[in-house]
Amino acid sequence: MNYNQIFDQAIDRLHAEGRYRVFIDILRNKGAFPNARCFAGHNGPKPVTVWCSNDYLAMGQHPKVIEAMEEALHDVGAGSGGTRNIGGNTHYHVDLEAELADLHGKEGALLFTSGYVSNEATLATLAKLLPGCVIFSDELNHASMIAGIRNSGCEKRVFRHNDLEHLETLLAAEEEATPKVIAFESVYSMDGDVAPIHAICDLAEKYNALTYIDEVHAVGMYGARGGGISERDEAAHRIDIIEGTLGKAFGVMGGYIAADTRIIDCIRSYAPGFIFTTSLSPVLVAGVLASVRHLKSSSEERDAQQAAAATLKAILTEKGIPVMDTTTHIVPVMVGDPVRAKKISDILLAEYGIYVQPINFPTVPRGTERLRFTPGPAHDEAMMHELADALVEIWDRLDLALLRAA
Amino acid sequence: MNYNQIFDQAIDRLHAEGRYRVFIDILRNKGAFPNARCFAGHNGPKPVTVWCSNDYLAMGQHPKVIEAMEEALHDVGAGSGGTRNIGGNTHYHVDLEAELADLHGKEGALLFTSGYVSNEATLATLAKLLPGCVIFSDELNHASMIAGIRNSGCEKRVFRHNDLEHLETLLAAEEEATPKVIAFESVYSMDGDVAPIHAICDLAEKYNALTYIDEVHAVGMYGARGGGISERDEAAHRIDIIEGTLGKAFGVMGGYIAADTRIIDCIRSYAPGFIFTTSLSPVLVAGVLASVRHLKSSSEERDAQQAAAATLKAILTEKGIPVMDTTTHIVPVMVGDPVRAKKISDILLAEYGIYVQPINFPTVPRGTERLRFTPGPAHDEAMMHELADALVEIWDRLDLALLRAA
Repeated sequence: MNYNQIFDQAIDRLHAEGRYRVFIDILRNKGAFPNARCFAGHNGPKPVTVWCSNDYLAMGQHPKVIEAMEEALHDVGAGSGGTRNIGGNTHYHVDLEAELADLHGKEGALLFTSGYVSNEATLATLAKLLPGCVIFSDELNHASMIAGIRNSGCEKRVFRHNDLEHLETLLAAEEEATPKVIAFESVYSMDGDVAPIHAICDLAEKYNALTYIDEVHAVGMYGARGGGISERDEAAHRIDIIEGTLGKAFGVMGGYIAADTRIIDCIRSYAPGFIFTTSLSPVLVAGVLASVRHLKSSSEERDAQQAAAATLKAILTEKGIPVMDTTTHIVPVMVGDPVRAKKISDILLAEYGIYVQPINFPTVPRGTERLRFTPGPAHDEAMMHELADALVEIWDRLDLALLRAA
Repeated sequence: MNYNQIFDQAIDRLHAEGRYRVFIDILRNKGAFPNARCFAGHNGPKPVTVWCSNDYLAMGQHPKVIEAMEEALHDVGAGSGGTRNIGGNTHYHVDLEAELADLHGKEGALLFTSGYVSNEATLATLAKLLPGCVIFSDELNHASMIAGIRNSGCEKRVFRHNDLEHLETLLAAEEEATPKVIAFESVYSMDGDVAPIHAICDLAEKYNALTYIDEVHAVGMYGARGGGISERDEAAHRIDIIEGTLGKAFGVMGGYIAADTRIIDCIRSYAPGFIFTTSLSPVLVAGVLASVRHLKSSSEERDAQQAAAATLKAILTEKGIPVMDTTTHIVPVMVGDPVRAKKISDILLAEYGIYVQPINFPTVPRGTERLRFTPGPAHDEAMMHELADALVEIWDRLDLALLRAA
């Protein structure tokens, strides 16, 4: 039994497939987002423009957020010092849960240390509480939802992406008395498309299934108060559990679910991933409180993000760069090969000071490797033209095909 | 299929067992730890003394930590904005991993969003990478280790707590060629006892097993530089993977592993719980950096904590309160019943302004419910006498037995 050999082989497989990941070492410049400093392989930090952040609305740099965090830091200190049950339940946590419940029009909410943990812990616990439960899962669901479903040990039926007919076929095949959960996302982050929420809820009602929606790429960004696609489409009341993140549009860190009191109390009481972990730092919670409250009343950031996404898509399309068709703020450019995707990203960083990470397996299926741009309120048109010109030059250098409008 | 009925029944079971949990809503007063304000059921906040925090050394209130976090907040903003691979790898993360690797004398380290996630993700991934792996797990291992082992789907052998003979019997029963991992803790947090690390490593060498140690209740607090029991016992070099937390003695939030480069690279590349989650906020990471660096060079906090624990144990023992025998900073008092444990805790909070959480199932086995005190550098002797007198009065009121020295 040679452990080192097995570990070496595991790493060799990644190199062989061209998907060994090297983390780019950066520091963002507060107040000057999307500008940052890059440390990797240079003499001293070098300025870069970040095009792949999930701090979609630059709320992580918002003065109200920074101020709230500073105040909490000086009022109560760095960490919570315990689990929610043992010393780690602060007044900030209580307030934020009330704020998030209100955001989604639900009775309650529950904080987790991350969106990943909120999906994993909630789905695993939900399925364990419902004897003989079957979960119906969209094939493009995030890894954290897949982990929760798998870790619950329950039966899983995977339906084709956003395919209502396939979902109904699978639902109809189960016994009426079988507990059922339909788990899906609102905005799919790598393709940028949106789920037909009402139609899925119609099926859930017809077959008496619970509904679980992951809104991590939508909260803060859609709906009049930032309640996500379920708010925009006036469907929140039809969803049993809405899951969101505090680390993307809200700009800080952490995750949550919102649901009725009964479900919140069950997850709070039975989920190991909630119970046995130090609660979110009150400093983070204070920052999120400010961020959620701000985005409830301000649509300026949302509007600017949508405008930036539309402009970037138009500019790239005009230049013939193969932008994937999306109806959201996410702007993916298909490459279709991990080695080339990394090569493009490397050239952009080294020669143009443009930072966009190549997206490869297991984040997307093999053969659909891509670049994924997330323009926000702080990306101006000059930056977009720089990016587009750089891409055209690299596309040419690497003999990649440009698309031309008919 | 009535979902509400099932959820109601799940909650009813907790009430029936007397272990339904109510979170105490508090805010700590920075600079005045262990003093805090309690919000629950009062008109306005009421002052309390916290006796159950895992911010063991009050580092969450240390000026160096606060200052470092404030600086990062103003330099780079609130959140990291992405996963480690996609935009969320900051220079703080790189620096902290180097600092933690050095703390444990290992080649590398890897940060996670929590200690829970570091255990779950590492053990699950490790066992999946080693075909046919068997994990040998101490029966008192933390829920997060149990989750990781279970989620890996590998074979598990549970050995009796700290029982070397039983562990060897189980190891000897497996094929020589079978990959083996021994997973255990250094300080068991609810009993306060310590693992025989060298003896376990002897067995690991004899049977060619990897060793995985959870040091979350020891890092920062034991060893000349705070490297934990493995440093104190000069055993760190014999352990393959050392896991720790940034949310207890280091006072902030997050978790990590330290190991050789090969293992770190494997976990970094294959663990979904590491890959698919927004990285720790750089503000937290900056605070931890200051905390780890301080505790590497200062033993003042460690010494004061040990002195406080010894004093409290002596005072409680002298009064006949049933303190469990421990060799560490943890001071558990056995009650043996969930309803009584909660009752004592409720009286302490309501009448004495003393906050200690009752510890019940599933955190400890049924029938061993207890109070768990964590005295630190900031708990003085006057507080200890107040606590002891209160306990004696409550013991008397509830007709509980005091122990008397022979």
